[in-house]
Amino acid sequence: METNYTLTNIEETEQFLSANGIEFTSVKHVAVPTVEKMLEEVKFEDKNVTFAKNLFLKDKKKKTLYLLIAKHDTVFDFKGLAKFLKTGSSNIRGGDADKLEEILKVKGGSVNLFSILNDNENKVELLMDKALYDQEYIGFHPMQNDATFAISSSDMEKVIKLSNHEPQVINFSELIVLSEAGKDKQEKKEKPKKEKKEKVKDEDLHELGITISRQDDFSLWYSQTITKSEMIEYYDVSGCYILRPWSYGIWERVQGFLDNLFKENGVENAYFPIFVTEKALTKEEDHLEGFAPEVAWVTRSGKTEMKEPIAIRPTSETIMYPAFAKWVQSHRDLPILLNQWTNIVRWEFKHPTPFIRTREFLWQEGHTAHATKDEATKFVYAILECYAKAYEEMYSVPVIRGIKSRGETFAGADFTSTVELFVPANGRGIQGATSHYLGQNFSKMFDLWFENEDKKKDFAHQTSWGFTTRSIGAMVMIHGDDKGLVLPPRVSQVQVVIVPISNKTNSDQILEVADKVFDTLKKAGIRVKIDDRKNYKPGWKFNHWEVKGVPIRIEIGAKDIEKSEIRVVRRFDGKKFQLSTEGLADNLHEELQKIQHEMYEKAVKERDQRIKKSATWEGFMTELNQRNLVLTPWCDKESCEDNVKERSKEESKQAENAGEEVLTGAAKTLCKPLEQPELAEDTKCFACDAGATATALWGRSY
Amino acid sequence: METNYTLTNIEETEQFLSANGIEFTSVKHVAVPTVEKMLEEVKFEDKNVTFAKNLFLKDKKKKTLYLLIAKHDTVFDFKGLAKFLKTGSSNIRGGDADKLEEILKVKGGSVNLFSILNDNENKVELLMDKALYDQEYIGFHPMQNDATFAISSSDMEKVIKLSNHEPQVINFSELIVLSEAGKDKQEKKEKPKKEKKEKVKDEDLHELGITISRQDDFSLWYSQTITKSEMIEYYDVSGCYILRPWSYGIWERVQGFLDNLFKENGVENAYFPIFVTEKALTKEEDHLEGFAPEVAWVTRSGKTEMKEPIAIRPTSETIMYPAFAKWVQSHRDLPILLNQWTNIVRWEFKHPTPFIRTREFLWQEGHTAHATKDEATKFVYAILECYAKAYEEMYSVPVIRGIKSRGETFAGADFTSTVELFVPANGRGIQGATSHYLGQNFSKMFDLWFENEDKKKDFAHQTSWGFTTRSIGAMVMIHGDDKGLVLPPRVSQVQVVIVPISNKTNSDQILEVADKVFDTLKKAGIRVKIDDRKNYKPGWKFNHWEVKGVPIRIEIGAKDIEKSEIRVVRRFDGKKFQLSTEGLADNLHEELQKIQHEMYEKAVKERDQRIKKSATWEGFMTELNQRNLVLTPWCDKESCEDNVKERSKEESKQAENAGEEVLTGAAKTLCKPLEQPELAEDTKCFACDAGATATALWGRSY
Repeated sequence: METNYTLTNIEETEQFLSANGIEFTSVKHVAVPTVEKMLEEVKFEDKNVTFAKNLFLKDKKKKTLYLLIAKHDTVFDFKGLAKFLKTGSSNIRGGDADKLEEILKVKGGSVNLFSILNDNENKVELLMDKALYDQEYIGFHPMQNDATFAISSSDMEKVIKLSNHEPQVINFSELIVLSEAGKDKQEKKEKPKKEKKEKVKDEDLHELGITISRQDDFSLWYSQTITKSEMIEYYDVSGCYILRPWSYGIWERVQGFLDNLFKENGVENAYFPIFVTEKALTKEEDHLEGFAPEVAWVTRSGKTEMKEPIAIRPTSETIMYPAFAKWVQSHRDLPILLNQWTNIVRWEFKHPTPFIRTREFLWQEGHTAHATKDEATKFVYAILECYAKAYEEMYSVPVIRGIKSRGETFAGADFTSTVELFVPANGRGIQGATSHYLGQNFSKMFDLWFENEDKKKDFAHQTSWGFTTRSIGAMVMIHGDDKGLVLPPRVSQVQVVIVPISNKTNSDQILEVADKVFDTLKKAGIRVKIDDRKNYKPGWKFNHWEVKGVPIRIEIGAKDIEKSEIRVVRRFDGKKFQLSTEGLADNLHEELQKIQHEMYEKAVKERDQRIKKSATWEGFMTELNQRNLVLTPWCDKESCEDNVKERSKEESKQAENAGEEVLTGAAKTLCKPLEQPELAEDTKCFACDAGATATALWGRSY
Repeated sequence: METNYTLTNIEETEQFLSANGIEFTSVKHVAVPTVEKMLEEVKFEDKNVTFAKNLFLKDKKKKTLYLLIAKHDTVFDFKGLAKFLKTGSSNIRGGDADKLEEILKVKGGSVNLFSILNDNENKVELLMDKALYDQEYIGFHPMQNDATFAISSSDMEKVIKLSNHEPQVINFSELIVLSEAGKDKQEKKEKPKKEKKEKVKDEDLHELGITISRQDDFSLWYSQTITKSEMIEYYDVSGCYILRPWSYGIWERVQGFLDNLFKENGVENAYFPIFVTEKALTKEEDHLEGFAPEVAWVTRSGKTEMKEPIAIRPTSETIMYPAFAKWVQSHRDLPILLNQWTNIVRWEFKHPTPFIRTREFLWQEGHTAHATKDEATKFVYAILECYAKAYEEMYSVPVIRGIKSRGETFAGADFTSTVELFVPANGRGIQGATSHYLGQNFSKMFDLWFENEDKKKDFAHQTSWGFTTRSIGAMVMIHGDDKGLVLPPRVSQVQVVIVPISNKTNSDQILEVADKVFDTLKKAGIRVKIDDRKNYKPGWKFNHWEVKGVPIRIEIGAKDIEKSEIRVVRRFDGKKFQLSTEGLADNLHEELQKIQHEMYEKAVKERDQRIKKSATWEGFMTELNQRNLVLTPWCDKESCEDNVKERSKEESKQAENAGEEVLTGAAKTLCKPLEQPELAEDTKCFACDAGATATALWGRSY
């Protein structure tokens, strides 16, 4: 059967879908030539829509053309793909623009699934990412990239069927393994060929390492970094990820650090149920409004429908405060200072990103009740200081302490304090952690009152505060480089990795020294690992531990042994030097501390030179578009912030359309920094006519 | 309106309900004169039925009669109730049997809601527990206690309405607070009366302390102990409880202890998502069959129905093993040794008991994959040893190590190893923790294969193992006494509490000494607390900390100071002695260790004298009915165990009906102990004609 469709624009796509009884939801938007842009700009309300990256490829040797449709966050390298297609790894290239337009009738930047319908003579082979078949809805451009149509995955299959193409469905997660495993076996097979010297093979490094730079594609770099470093494994429920020991170990250390600080502040740990009744959840209206759309509901147990659906906690204010109300009678029962380390579920429809935005995440949530406002607000800041310390002292990440604008305040809080971070590689701000003063909003709703010292009834003043696994993602983005992870020593699962550089003649001797060094360091309390695997070469190992971000690598070779020395390589800046095996543990302890400190200093410097000041709209936009954060005098009005969001988004688009290389998207306040410069009298808001009442820090943020 | 019903038996109750359009589900069973029996015996399939305790009461002064219908696990004391009814606390008594039969037309042991329908002249006031109104279905006897009818809570209201009684609805959880708070205020008011001496007021103790002995009502004693000690707060989702710092602190310490042991065994921590797709969950059939009825399903987010419902983990085999399969290619990728500390949800319909059986609980679950069976089974036992240590060394609880019978094996496992505990106060066994050898059952289902050393494809051998917050409940039951909790020093949140015994003249001096002692002990690493609250008297404090089970109380009075001494009182056995303030920290450290050890020794002794041997059915039943565990020669057949369950249940009923004071219910194997005595040849199974192949430990168990 030869098909005969011609789809070149949105109208023709609509007609095709309607004619074939395929339901679709349509969204119009600015032109989005890349999937990254698409993720930023395109939103479907109330529908869980996954986006696809669409690649037109060719095999330059076989002269085959491919249309590859993959889930936006699927991680794959071309080597793996080449292997799957049974061709040489350098044969796969981008397809030519003229072929694209001739056969698929679409321009680069608008490639999409529907375009395969134009291939009436089956000149193009269709490659489908298996992950797409598990999605509820998938979004494709209707031949032009200023609109997106969401169709169900079964309708996606229908479209393919109508196109008369038999797709090859690829499980990319298996492909990665296949490709790495293949390498392993290949290495073994190559042994008989008598390679004389240990040689780092470029090809191996390429497969193992990060194949894309942060500048070229930050989001792909991030995916590769967290998966290849073995921090994250993708999972078959959208928005949920597996935290492997390499990332969970970091969480454990930060957890221990914060838990101590909390306990020093008198906080005790407890555990409240994960489930909340609809009645309790809906008691505080503002709060509810903030969380209702994201709540996951349990409605069935086994095969039995529940009488009342039960919500999974999106946060625990409404779970804890009825109990607080029971426990408190008198001012002597206050303060209550409780914390819990738990999982949290927020079923967001924005695109998930591991660590940064996930449907389930780990956090601690602290909840307190105090007799006075003064005591409660002091506590808010005491906790904010704990969060700042965790970033500064554990993650080597500098923070800006501030207060959120009204529009960015926690649902139900009087005010929200925050620590804000900056990602130099893409110029984005990122919220580090928040500590809220809830005032008496919840205590009034939940009857949390007490008899005060004057024997009068008063409502408790409350705080709540949370720190999440998002912090790990922020750290990865801030410190990572084009080789992969860079971990601060205090959080890294492994602080020092020893790689023996041996050959056949000296192998035993070198391994013996390496073992001794290992024992010495372990006894000295350094988290050390020895990589004495025989089936990998040193070059492969160097790369492996660099991707994983281990702060210090120790190399021990024949020459080093002669001099009773070892070679030290710092991951963070690549510095190499020799150290005597004498006093090694002390020296390495010191070195690790230095690295911890220097990483922090570097991050401060990179951030500070990117925080600009501007009192005018034009200056503000210029700095913003250059991927900077901007401090401005501001009127502190919610409506003004809304305008800024709208306007900055629009104007950055225009700049981009005019050919400028700028960061686009809506800017918002990250915070009003606690350290406020004095404002000259009559200072105007940078964005509107009102008088400025505060200095605000603005940026594009996660 | 005067009603005119007469209900005296099951048939008349049925007629009444049908005539009034009230739906009910009926279950017949042996006679259950108490709610405890009811909980054991009465099961509704597929329906979440809550049982009620029904009390016929009178106010001996006011001459009022009451029918009180409360949720089976509602904790209340008569003082609180008296206060609610605005009468003296000693006025509330059990109602007379003749009045009961005359007015409500029912016998003691069968009292139920329907009986109020017989009170056509409104001689009896109806008191309803508010908690009942939140239940899906409530079970009541249809005037005779060998049957139970489940009706919905709205139909319960309908019955009440038809009875023409206006019930007083009591929120017992508030009542407890009310009663305690009332006492506090009462104390204050009494001060002007010039009490000359500090005197422990019986009344106060009664309210604060445990009001029921373990012998009289073990389950009520347990409820009182865990709530009054501030371990547990009840919560408004059935089967879910709040773990307050007093219990969560214990969990944290046991967690730390086990986590270290696991890490010594090479295990790393990770975190896998709470959600699992239906597809993955249903992959291993036996496993699925074991868990399917208890799985909670999320079907909605916000207001959006999900395309596919998603399950909440009842355990994580099916979540983890697909990832394991990705990670493993070669024998060099093995073993995988992972653990996670998480919450777990099993929506059971059996009656929940805090810690012991709850719909959400906390645990760790370890999951491993090995290249050989030998390595995997060794690991199973290495972990079992960790569990034994946690009980023995942290909880001071002795364990019996063993293998579960086929019928009691984990769904999907080849065998389950277990540590089993014994509760002397009620003669029940309780499973402590289990470690499973999964064989290749899951690895075959989830494609977890690897290339072995001979380059051949082989499936991994797996283990999984878990330890839960149930352990806290077991410890409470095993060590608790009629005054409340008794905590082993190593797990207790507070190890030593200091109570200054001061009066007006020496108060400053005594507080000064107490503070010094506090500082000394704190510096020495003892978890110490000083109770210097001015609004409570020493007697009240003694009681407070006894209920909470603090291992050592230190009293410091005027006489002690003169002699540079303090008074030490051990919670566990009440021993009192003086200690010099000189060298106090060291002596108390030693004392705490002694207590830890002596508590263990006591528990061993109490258990060992209750483990009996029998080779005959008659001996077995005699011992069992006397609340003992029994070791027997056994054929190890599943059908035989089923028969024993049936028969033991039946015969213990008969014994009870014949007037014997026995523990009733079905007996099952706790385990086949690892230490097996030699069986003489031709030894027969104690219960059937087959030959015995093992010695099994039997008991009635949680």
